[in-house]
Amino acid sequence: MPPQNLAVDTNRLWVDVMALAKITDSQHPYTRRSFSPLFLEGRRWLAQQFADAGLTVRVDAAGNLIGRAPGRLPSLGVIAVGSHSDTVPSGGRFDGIAGVVTGLEIIRALRDANIRLDHTIEIIDFLAEEPSEYGLSCIGSRGMSGALEPQMLNMTNSEGEALRDALRRVGGDPDRLNEARRRDIKAFIELHIEQGVVLEARSLDIGIVTAIVGIRRIELVFVGAADHAGTTPMALRHDALVAGANTVASVRRIAEQIAAEGQDYFVATVGILAMEPGAANVVPSKCKIVIDARATNHALTERFTRIIELESAQHAADARVSRSPLTILSDGPPAGCDPTLRAVLYEDARKLGLSTLDIASGAGHDTAFMSRICPSGMVLVPCRHGKSHSPEEWADGDAIAAGAAVVLQSVKTLDQSLPRNSDARGGQ
Amino acid sequence: MPPQNLAVDTNRLWVDVMALAKITDSQHPYTRRSFSPLFLEGRRWLAQQFADAGLTVRVDAAGNLIGRAPGRLPSLGVIAVGSHSDTVPSGGRFDGIAGVVTGLEIIRALRDANIRLDHTIEIIDFLAEEPSEYGLSCIGSRGMSGALEPQMLNMTNSEGEALRDALRRVGGDPDRLNEARRRDIKAFIELHIEQGVVLEARSLDIGIVTAIVGIRRIELVFVGAADHAGTTPMALRHDALVAGANTVASVRRIAEQIAAEGQDYFVATVGILAMEPGAANVVPSKCKIVIDARATNHALTERFTRIIELESAQHAADARVSRSPLTILSDGPPAGCDPTLRAVLYEDARKLGLSTLDIASGAGHDTAFMSRICPSGMVLVPCRHGKSHSPEEWADGDAIAAGAAVVLQSVKTLDQSLPRNSDARGGQ
Repeated sequence: MPPQNLAVDTNRLWVDVMALAKITDSQHPYTRRSFSPLFLEGRRWLAQQFADAGLTVRVDAAGNLIGRAPGRLPSLGVIAVGSHSDTVPSGGRFDGIAGVVTGLEIIRALRDANIRLDHTIEIIDFLAEEPSEYGLSCIGSRGMSGALEPQMLNMTNSEGEALRDALRRVGGDPDRLNEARRRDIKAFIELHIEQGVVLEARSLDIGIVTAIVGIRRIELVFVGAADHAGTTPMALRHDALVAGANTVASVRRIAEQIAAEGQDYFVATVGILAMEPGAANVVPSKCKIVIDARATNHALTERFTRIIELESAQHAADARVSRSPLTILSDGPPAGCDPTLRAVLYEDARKLGLSTLDIASGAGHDTAFMSRICPSGMVLVPCRHGKSHSPEEWADGDAIAAGAAVVLQSVKTLDQSLPRNSDARGGQ
Repeated sequence: MPPQNLAVDTNRLWVDVMALAKITDSQHPYTRRSFSPLFLEGRRWLAQQFADAGLTVRVDAAGNLIGRAPGRLPSLGVIAVGSHSDTVPSGGRFDGIAGVVTGLEIIRALRDANIRLDHTIEIIDFLAEEPSEYGLSCIGSRGMSGALEPQMLNMTNSEGEALRDALRRVGGDPDRLNEARRRDIKAFIELHIEQGVVLEARSLDIGIVTAIVGIRRIELVFVGAADHAGTTPMALRHDALVAGANTVASVRRIAEQIAAEGQDYFVATVGILAMEPGAANVVPSKCKIVIDARATNHALTERFTRIIELESAQHAADARVSRSPLTILSDGPPAGCDPTLRAVLYEDARKLGLSTLDIASGAGHDTAFMSRICPSGMVLVPCRHGKSHSPEEWADGDAIAAGAAVVLQSVKTLDQSLPRNSDARGGQ
């Protein structure tokens, strides 16, 4: 079947993105925080579009909004497409939204082409992909993949509301989370803006994600003495900032070295440095740094951590300060995308005349959790200057539509190529 | 005349220190901020003690509280002793106070010994030695030395009150500052706690200040880009914190090198590092550091500044960020203590059986301004662990009394040894 029969409508897709953008805290565009009234307003609008496109609509026990188009052979299971409609505070119009709207547009394109697939198709708006007010991200995809632990439901927002109750408020059911866990999804595809500059810099259309980084957050605290900056000779100081600053330099140098090895994706950042007392005439007595280390290969994160532990201890000794034990604040494993699904996306993009790049995702995504329960793949589209999580975030309508065309084509390819014997997957 | 006739009364001196300590913001001991009601309450108490000791008391046009004991030969001029009674927020009981109380005790000791000197003696409580709410320090000693510039009177506190009006509130007269400028003071001595660990570490009684450091404050601002900490490869980052951290390391290394040359006193500190946006998953886009560099030789400060300017520019280039022009926020010259006065203090300390050390003052003091108008000297006494500007600040009563005994003896020595021909000073 030639591509023109499966065309996505760029304008229709763009109108949807802009319609959702209007549902924002007008004082802080673009803000549609998960669990908020604005978020629910956005979902009501989405649910209406899903219904208008002929989908049956529901919210599962984990709070995911799901639109469903039954297949001709329902026993084959589900091919799912999705992302999320929540935003960070003062975020952008595309992060997450582009992937949800892509799902919607695929359904409309199939309908316009009078195509009914063998597999059931689901469009998923995952609940709370961004870090929520309850201190947890990817709540919906955790729930769908069985990774929403019971104790997480006890996490609270600043007003004391438990996630358990918030989940109920948005239509989920914390007492029946098991029902959200899926075994019938045979493939999952997420389209997302890159949130980086690689595709733009190389003028490429499509990034096909090889793996999604695991993210480790490390905290180090150095403690010295708040001595007088005038009367304390250099040789008698216990300067916590000097130890912290040298550790920032170490993080940079080691990360550059590991990244330059090139086999796997690795980045590390000190995004938080807090020091006390913060007066020009007082030697800093305390310095806390938070390191964010991301790798598609967990062994690199382990190696990085070991070197930082050694070097920061040396920096503390050199500055005559103490260093806290290295604290791992959080630690998520990397997630690989399915090789077969990657190959399908690659072939379909090439057939559509689009340039592609195998690329690691340095950002976390719902796909990382979905990859635990089904073959999963991600399509990245370029965004301007790599800016994301800010009102300046921008992706061209044509760029999103190109990505959506790949997803549409691959959904159709997968509908035919996915193993139809339910035992077949084990033999792949 | 044997020393016992000139004994200072340790207990009387200690009682005064503790009496002033009680005049504090009880929620934040020890706080007696210049220009505040508590400060004025402390001064009322001091003025009463001055009067009880037989002094005539006045506040000069620059807001200094002055107690005066006329000499037998008033035309010889004045020997002045003093320091300040204001504190930093949550400061200590000794910084400044020890020097004011020493002046008071000297007057009482002279009176007890029935000694009347040829020179007039003045005890000065300088106004606002500590950085005031109006953004200026050493207000009283600036005024007395002609360094209180007219535009400084326009500086305001957070409530919008001008220093001009605040000065009037504490009994000064901003329109007659010329009258505060003194030409009749022939010698000035200030006793102060060391605010450092050198005397304590070497178990010495008395520090005789050779020079008071000049203080230069330098601000550097690095600006990069707030990119995603996951999706931005190491080689494409513009990390402002990395440039700032490397500059902190440079400040430390260069300061250690210059200090190790040993001829002059030099220290440099980064006491403030502020970075934005301060999120674990965002590459830092902005980093501001404030450098405090202090030297008894201004050429060292100039050399340090030149090297930092070069190295910070290199760090900015390496991190692919921009750096603001190096901004000198403030710059005070070093002040030398008078060699003849130093020799008098040394000899009198030795006669009293006290151990001494020639020492540079890394802290700023009113003496730095007084040295512009008369031969000036400083006596430092040990304080515990070098702690100052905090409630933990501590100096033993015996240590202060030993310093006060040196000041008392030297006032008496100077009364006889100061040149009596008013033209003589030029030939010294």
